[in-house]
Amino acid sequence: MGKMKDRIRDSRLWDRICSAEEAASWIKDGMTLGLSGFTRAGDVKAVPFALVERAKKEPLKVNVFTGASLGSDVDKMFAEAGIIRKRLPFQADAVMRKKINAGELLFVDHHLSHTAEYVRANTIEPIDVAILEAISITEDGMVIPSTSVGNSLSFAKQAKSIIIEINMAQPSLLEGLHDLYDPEKQGERSPIPLKKVEDRIGTTGIPVDVEKIKGIVFTEQLDSPSTIVDPDDETQMMAKHLIGFLRKEVKAGRLAEHLAPLQSGIGSVANAVLHGMLDSEFKDLEIYSEVLQDAVFDLIDAGKVRFASCCSITLSEKKMNHVFGQFEKYRDKLIMRPQELSNHPEIIRRLGLISINAALEFDIYGNVNSTHVSGTNMMNGIGGSGDFARNARLAIFVTKSLAKGGDISSIVPFVSHVDHTEHDVDVVVTEQGYADLRGLAPRERAPLIIENCAHPLYRDQLWTYYSEALERGGQTPHVLEKAFSWHIQYKNQGTMLQQIKEKEMA
Amino acid sequence: MGKMKDRIRDSRLWDRICSAEEAASWIKDGMTLGLSGFTRAGDVKAVPFALVERAKKEPLKVNVFTGASLGSDVDKMFAEAGIIRKRLPFQADAVMRKKINAGELLFVDHHLSHTAEYVRANTIEPIDVAILEAISITEDGMVIPSTSVGNSLSFAKQAKSIIIEINMAQPSLLEGLHDLYDPEKQGERSPIPLKKVEDRIGTTGIPVDVEKIKGIVFTEQLDSPSTIVDPDDETQMMAKHLIGFLRKEVKAGRLAEHLAPLQSGIGSVANAVLHGMLDSEFKDLEIYSEVLQDAVFDLIDAGKVRFASCCSITLSEKKMNHVFGQFEKYRDKLIMRPQELSNHPEIIRRLGLISINAALEFDIYGNVNSTHVSGTNMMNGIGGSGDFARNARLAIFVTKSLAKGGDISSIVPFVSHVDHTEHDVDVVVTEQGYADLRGLAPRERAPLIIENCAHPLYRDQLWTYYSEALERGGQTPHVLEKAFSWHIQYKNQGTMLQQIKEKEMA
Ligand SMILES: CC(C)(COP(=O)(O)OP(=O)(O)OC[C@H]1O[C@@H](n2cnc3c(N)ncnc32)[C@H](O)[C@@H]1OP(=O)(O)O)[C@@H](O)C(=O)NCCC(=O)NCCS
Ligand SMILES: CC(C)(COP(=O)(O)OP(=O)(O)OC[C@H]1O[C@@H](n2cnc3c(N)ncnc32)[C@H](O)[C@@H]1OP(=O)(O)O)[C@@H](O)C(=O)NCCC(=O)NCCS
Repeated sequence: MGKMKDRIRDSRLWDRICSAEEAASWIKDGMTLGLSGFTRAGDVKAVPFALVERAKKEPLKVNVFTGASLGSDVDKMFAEAGIIRKRLPFQADAVMRKKINAGELLFVDHHLSHTAEYVRANTIEPIDVAILEAISITEDGMVIPSTSVGNSLSFAKQAKSIIIEINMAQPSLLEGLHDLYDPEKQGERSPIPLKKVEDRIGTTGIPVDVEKIKGIVFTEQLDSPSTIVDPDDETQMMAKHLIGFLRKEVKAGRLAEHLAPLQSGIGSVANAVLHGMLDSEFKDLEIYSEVLQDAVFDLIDAGKVRFASCCSITLSEKKMNHVFGQFEKYRDKLIMRPQELSNHPEIIRRLGLISINAALEFDIYGNVNSTHVSGTNMMNGIGGSGDFARNARLAIFVTKSLAKGGDISSIVPFVSHVDHTEHDVDVVVTEQGYADLRGLAPRERAPLIIENCAHPLYRDQLWTYYSEALERGGQTPHVLEKAFSWHIQYKNQGTMLQQIKEKEMA
Repeated sequence: MGKMKDRIRDSRLWDRICSAEEAASWIKDGMTLGLSGFTRAGDVKAVPFALVERAKKEPLKVNVFTGASLGSDVDKMFAEAGIIRKRLPFQADAVMRKKINAGELLFVDHHLSHTAEYVRANTIEPIDVAILEAISITEDGMVIPSTSVGNSLSFAKQAKSIIIEINMAQPSLLEGLHDLYDPEKQGERSPIPLKKVEDRIGTTGIPVDVEKIKGIVFTEQLDSPSTIVDPDDETQMMAKHLIGFLRKEVKAGRLAEHLAPLQSGIGSVANAVLHGMLDSEFKDLEIYSEVLQDAVFDLIDAGKVRFASCCSITLSEKKMNHVFGQFEKYRDKLIMRPQELSNHPEIIRRLGLISINAALEFDIYGNVNSTHVSGTNMMNGIGGSGDFARNARLAIFVTKSLAKGGDISSIVPFVSHVDHTEHDVDVVVTEQGYADLRGLAPRERAPLIIENCAHPLYRDQLWTYYSEALERGGQTPHVLEKAFSWHIQYKNQGTMLQQIKEKEMA
């Protein structure tokens, strides 16, 4: 109990300590919950499970809003228990994905900087209960988040009541790293006074109305480690191409030697590409990103990163032990912000980020699909990729040129779903090379993308499509009858490769 | 000459007065020109014509960068003379459109707030010569723009040399209305200190290095009047629906009685919808827009607008006479800014604009096509619609549900080109009604759009597509084989209507 009270430094709150089951019992059917958690980090780990248990005995449907994806199998359990009516703004769980695509629950795919605006303006379902992981609560009732900040500030402000999970397993050295800033209502706000990645503009915790804190649950469980895989030959090639491009920019005087603040997206590919910076000449790097994955800490260890601002820290198991085992080493190089800030267009544009995100596929004109397999099935969600790509100094998208053992070309005539339009895509990179699309018209883009980025297996096929499209003319030439023929053929015949189709038909 | 010298108050510049022909003679083959002009307003009217004359005698190709579309038939003449290699970031001329779509010149379709960033960062062709319309040049060498600001500030700053056209026909009372502010380089800039639509944050003219001013040409020619048509029954219905929606928002406490600063796009439909506000209860309106069209001045006349910030003033002939004939009446309600500011994500998000733009078509999930007819042929360009829609408090798109006498449904299964993704589209409006898409998943959006916005002629057809898509499942159900079948049928058979096709085939 003494240890617990150390973590609840506001003694007014000592009587709120309760069990996860009790806290879960306050949640009513039909409510909207605002949960902490961003890409597996800093999610609540007890009340969701108690809720799932309850749902075995009584019918229960809730809306679940979070920062981004959850770890600890919470999304999986929620999906299996069938207790979710609506989920937003992001998820990355295989079971939930399946249920979403089967239409069993509603998924709303937001730009991650937008959710807080919608909550604040009361244009989506109001938050009944905010359930937030914390390290501690301060003397004056400020809630100190753990390994992610997500939407916790805006959920806490708008929720009718709040449940806190104090996680004793999270490194308490995180306290002091967070920078909580609320831009306030649109039309009544001031400029956000952040000019450098390290600028501290808010408080170290979430100021809450303690009257709203209904219960405090104690947990002791680490975040789920990230599932990314190590860099491979192809991602190393991609990193090499990207570094080559950046080097050219420095030479042309368009970038400084220390580049510009970097944002790097989620997933194995984005991590691997950033990891490739280890072998570059670039140093004194700055990071202004959503998630810090393993690569950022490798770069810090190598003395290449001056400072990193983020919204969450999501590491593999090995890296987690390494980093949190000697966290003093990293503490003065880190700051953690709400996703509304880490992804805010005002800041992204002002700082002029170099933004690197992964794509599922892009087309010959540079439109990018980040979310929908074959235009229909949700993978994860757009996440922050749109926040960054639209406003960055350099919006870079990376993908391997092939997927599914070569049966899919990630460069297609027409993307089956558009998340980022040609206006927002500056450079595309695959293991084959890169295409710098800045200032190019569609007819200049297509040949460059086909030659530099497509896999040789598919290059002729793309040229054939483009030539036929050119005969029809237009600013963005297309053969609408064939625009999706590659995706259709993949569905029907298991490959996008034309020759095979022709062979089989012969 | 005296009158001329009155307009060039910096006597160091008197010796720069020259003829348009002389100025045009300085332009070399292969150069990149930065021209003033934004939606027919404030474009240069003499040097371009002299250049076209020159091109009759010698081969000449140049890149032409502007604010937005030009009037005075400049784009038409340029296109006919074949002197353009690359044109950006917007145009709206029928002849140029044809040449673009035939691949005879390159057109780069930018977000209008982005061009200045590209020019400043030197990532597109550097500006050799800026050619800018002005009302006057001040004692200290500041160039006072005329009826638009466009990209003139950044062109002037970056250009190697500058040619000024002083237009004696433009109302000199415009002097003092402009607010020139340069955010400076990304990574080195401060927050933009604008908090209210009327805030003045810059200078009243473009500060230039007078050494760069090579020539000053005098002209006396009004801007080309806008080509918009008057509101009709359908646009009046659209305005009624929109006002109904806004009224509901006020009632729900999400909007104040005076709403929020309004942005309204180009074209007849956007103008007509804004015009409809005349018959509403809303007053003390604020405008923070790109272009002010006729409707804004109707609203000012009716005492409904408190203040309007813009980048250009583009009026019909009648309205131009009315407004400029008694400009004192409007002067204290207006401010004019560079397009980088009128369209800046930082400001749009901070003020929380209500943004109303016209679409060519949208699909059952709320993706919007603003630019490409049948996915291929450029209409005008994305303009500022993306700057606004992404960052607005309310991103509203309007279109008539039918085009081409009913042969086209503007609500389709899958838009043939995506300019605005479902993430950026809050409300869609046709003369049939509106669909409020905020916080809705794709499967919630489709029924609402079909029922509320599609024309009854096409409703069943949309339901048929959507039902078949639902059988396939997915977050965003589609039948890829049929996604573009409506556009294809229109091309082949002149109508998107299925029954007719079936009748003909029987
Ligand atoms: C696009 C995204 C899914 C890529 O993830 P990744 O882990 O880097 O990439 P991978 O190459 O391992 O691909 C992931 C899966 O997509 C599949 N895939 C890749 N390209 C594909 C394509 N063109 N068509 C179909 N499937 C494809 C892969 O085969 C793999 O499938 P598996 O899980 O069954 O093995 C991921 O980055 C994402 O969700 N992005 C959207 C959100 C975002 O960008 N956030 C950034 C801000 S943090
Ligand atoms: C979309 C846009 C073309 C609509 O213009 P408008 O004048 O309001 O609309 P209209 O209904 O008169 O349509 C213009 C033309 O498009 C055609 N059109 C409309 N919908 C169409 C569709 N779904 N398919 C094909 N053509 C269509 C009309 O028939 C008309 O053709 P016409 O010129 O041959 O008569 C115009 O708003 C635009 O260019 N927008 C993009 C830029 C922008 O939004 N800027 C906003 C910030 S200022």
